[in-house]
Amino acid sequence: MSVSVKPPSGTRDFLPADVIVRRHVTGIIRETYERYGFAPLETPALERLDVLTGKYGDEGDQLMFKVLKRGKKLPALQPDLDPNALTDLALRYDLTVPLARVVAAHHGQLPKFFKRYQIQPVWRADRPQRGRFREFYQCDVDFAGTTSVVAEATVISAVRDALGALGFSDFVVHVNDRRVLTGLMEVADIKEELRGPALVAIDKLDKVGVEGVNRELREAGLDEAAIEALNQTVLAESFGLEALTAAFGGVSETGTAGADTLSTLFALLGASDSGAGTVRFDASLARGLSYYTGPIFEIRIDGMAGSIGGGGRYDGLVGMFRGTQIPSVGFSLGLERILVVMEDRGMSPDGTLPPDLYIAQLDADTVPDCFQLAQAVRQAGFRVDMHPEKAKLGKQFAYAESLGARFVALYGKREKEAGEAQVKDLKSGDQHAVPVGELAAWIAARG
Amino acid sequence: MSVSVKPPSGTRDFLPADVIVRRHVTGIIRETYERYGFAPLETPALERLDVLTGKYGDEGDQLMFKVLKRGKKLPALQPDLDPNALTDLALRYDLTVPLARVVAAHHGQLPKFFKRYQIQPVWRADRPQRGRFREFYQCDVDFAGTTSVVAEATVISAVRDALGALGFSDFVVHVNDRRVLTGLMEVADIKEELRGPALVAIDKLDKVGVEGVNRELREAGLDEAAIEALNQTVLAESFGLEALTAAFGGVSETGTAGADTLSTLFALLGASDSGAGTVRFDASLARGLSYYTGPIFEIRIDGMAGSIGGGGRYDGLVGMFRGTQIPSVGFSLGLERILVVMEDRGMSPDGTLPPDLYIAQLDADTVPDCFQLAQAVRQAGFRVDMHPEKAKLGKQFAYAESLGARFVALYGKREKEAGEAQVKDLKSGDQHAVPVGELAAWIAARG
Repeated sequence: MSVSVKPPSGTRDFLPADVIVRRHVTGIIRETYERYGFAPLETPALERLDVLTGKYGDEGDQLMFKVLKRGKKLPALQPDLDPNALTDLALRYDLTVPLARVVAAHHGQLPKFFKRYQIQPVWRADRPQRGRFREFYQCDVDFAGTTSVVAEATVISAVRDALGALGFSDFVVHVNDRRVLTGLMEVADIKEELRGPALVAIDKLDKVGVEGVNRELREAGLDEAAIEALNQTVLAESFGLEALTAAFGGVSETGTAGADTLSTLFALLGASDSGAGTVRFDASLARGLSYYTGPIFEIRIDGMAGSIGGGGRYDGLVGMFRGTQIPSVGFSLGLERILVVMEDRGMSPDGTLPPDLYIAQLDADTVPDCFQLAQAVRQAGFRVDMHPEKAKLGKQFAYAESLGARFVALYGKREKEAGEAQVKDLKSGDQHAVPVGELAAWIAARG
Repeated sequence: MSVSVKPPSGTRDFLPADVIVRRHVTGIIRETYERYGFAPLETPALERLDVLTGKYGDEGDQLMFKVLKRGKKLPALQPDLDPNALTDLALRYDLTVPLARVVAAHHGQLPKFFKRYQIQPVWRADRPQRGRFREFYQCDVDFAGTTSVVAEATVISAVRDALGALGFSDFVVHVNDRRVLTGLMEVADIKEELRGPALVAIDKLDKVGVEGVNRELREAGLDEAAIEALNQTVLAESFGLEALTAAFGGVSETGTAGADTLSTLFALLGASDSGAGTVRFDASLARGLSYYTGPIFEIRIDGMAGSIGGGGRYDGLVGMFRGTQIPSVGFSLGLERILVVMEDRGMSPDGTLPPDLYIAQLDADTVPDCFQLAQAVRQAGFRVDMHPEKAKLGKQFAYAESLGARFVALYGKREKEAGEAQVKDLKSGDQHAVPVGELAAWIAARG
């Protein structure tokens, strides 16, 4: 009895009402992704450890759930043994690295432009907090096989459209390009080794403000000229996409390439701006993951700290698994954070699955007849439940009502002799005698 | 480059065609279960180790994927350290124990008769073989909260109906009762300690035949009188349900209770025998898991060694997590084995998701217009893809065809000036000029 019946810390049991809501939301996301030509992929929960390690940075490696080797593969325990020798597999940490592995493995058999979506859980041994769990679902959409910015426009539009279909209109898609950030560092004449710390500081702009970022930049060791340059560009409120070309002209080829890509991307998105939410250039957006190489995205919404989705171009990741590169771009929506905002705002759909018909139990002898009746109405496509035990009729009605049943049927000895069930409509309160052979049709007519 | 791109041994990547087929099959199972009044439950992939251990027997404990403790929780490695001290969590081994934990945890908040289904993966470090994997899906349906045999009849009917809806008609549901087996051991006067080995031998009847079972019974140490008694009952081909009452009369109360339950169950099932497959009493059915207490079931089908599903009543399992017992019965279908048989028999549905419209790329200038056109047709609910790069038109058509697209639209400078897309119907070969504003309606009319 001392065993805890709670699920492990940071994970959850989804009772029927939860599953129904989650299924409704993922169904809408899935339908939207499919309209954009993305096809579903599923990968195993477990991946070989060497597939995952080194892709997410040190923090990621530490937050992975690693699986103990089994049987004879488990080495003898010794004080000097590296704990990593105890494990060979880990639970997937995201859906992007497994996708890159699949693209590398099946190259040649997949369509040249592999457009896949994937809605599956991932696991991170993070500290649990609001909307942040150790097992959580990501809804990823990725476009592999092209450097064309049509890929970026497609994943951004698909995600906007999915959020719009869920009822969101006030989110903002922040867009930047890793090369723009590099260019701005070049323009500000920041030394190679200070660029990482500078990016970390800049990424905090919406949390700590300009003054806070300046303080961190100073602490990171940047000189005043560099800080001043950054205040003129990335940290300036009015710093828009148009200013980039002027800033980079003749100074940064990398920056110019990034600015050109973003111009094309915004032209594509602007041509068809029927989507929900807004898309905005944000020079201070940096994104944590190290594998991004071009445009990067992040979705923010009022009422949720941090983002509800993010992504970007990662042209080098597949190449970590095979000789040739396969340029790719992806966008990931965080299901749990979307659900939190939907619940806060009262946008969640109904989570019930009430029976159309509930058959009460009047006496033991007619239980087989009731079961037969239930089967016949089920065959017609209705949801039917029956009381499995003897109980007072009032209790049975109360139970049917608690399930949200529309109709309750009584079918005992007397009803069997008459060939008619007594059916009560819990919505109207009316009661009718219905010939048993016509019960399904009778319900259908009142659907 | 030395990293393997294969998924871990015994696990699989599901490419789009696989996912679409799997989704189709689980969708049919889900709809059927819901018509029977079962509601969906989902539990975490990880469970606390103490929740799982001791529920599946020694073999199960050894086949679990256990998760290494993280950070400071990991004890210092020493030669005398019990490897179990290294782990605190494991991947779920089935869906029944997590259900029992949930029922124990939420008792009082759940409906009195908790009818849940669950379609999720489970993990076992078993030796991979045909239709047997280390990550595989189970489709469970369970009825908790009653000892009424209506529960057994409901789960059996739901499973038969689900298989019928998938197109199966020739499967056999073998039914027995743990108490019948106990009774037959009592009648044969077999000592307590020999009953386990005797059951293991009897369970092999369909694999090794009567002679084989007799040999094993002798090796297990049963005397000739006991073996003869078993040959008259459980091993006799003609041994039916009716013979049970005679065999147990005045000799075995346990056996009589089991026989009575089975009689009621078959009466219920017989009253509504519109289901697919047949249900058959099989005195030699034993089932491995130790938690069964009453009726047990197993589904067999030609072309698949072993079973494609099984289950039974487990009245004591929830009580392992809380003071009071909650009687329950369940049935589990093995998705992978069902899929293998469906593929062998050519019953698998189509696994494609072809675009309704494919938009070719004629020149760089009109890419935003093409993107806009794609968005407009998507808004109308169609699946639309567009070529992201410049390429020869023949190649683009070939690519659209390889995806199974129905229509290909050309929309370059000339078409833009005319306000009409050139649309080719890949099915008929016809080509039409369609005003861009009418394209979605035009496609709908040719659906």
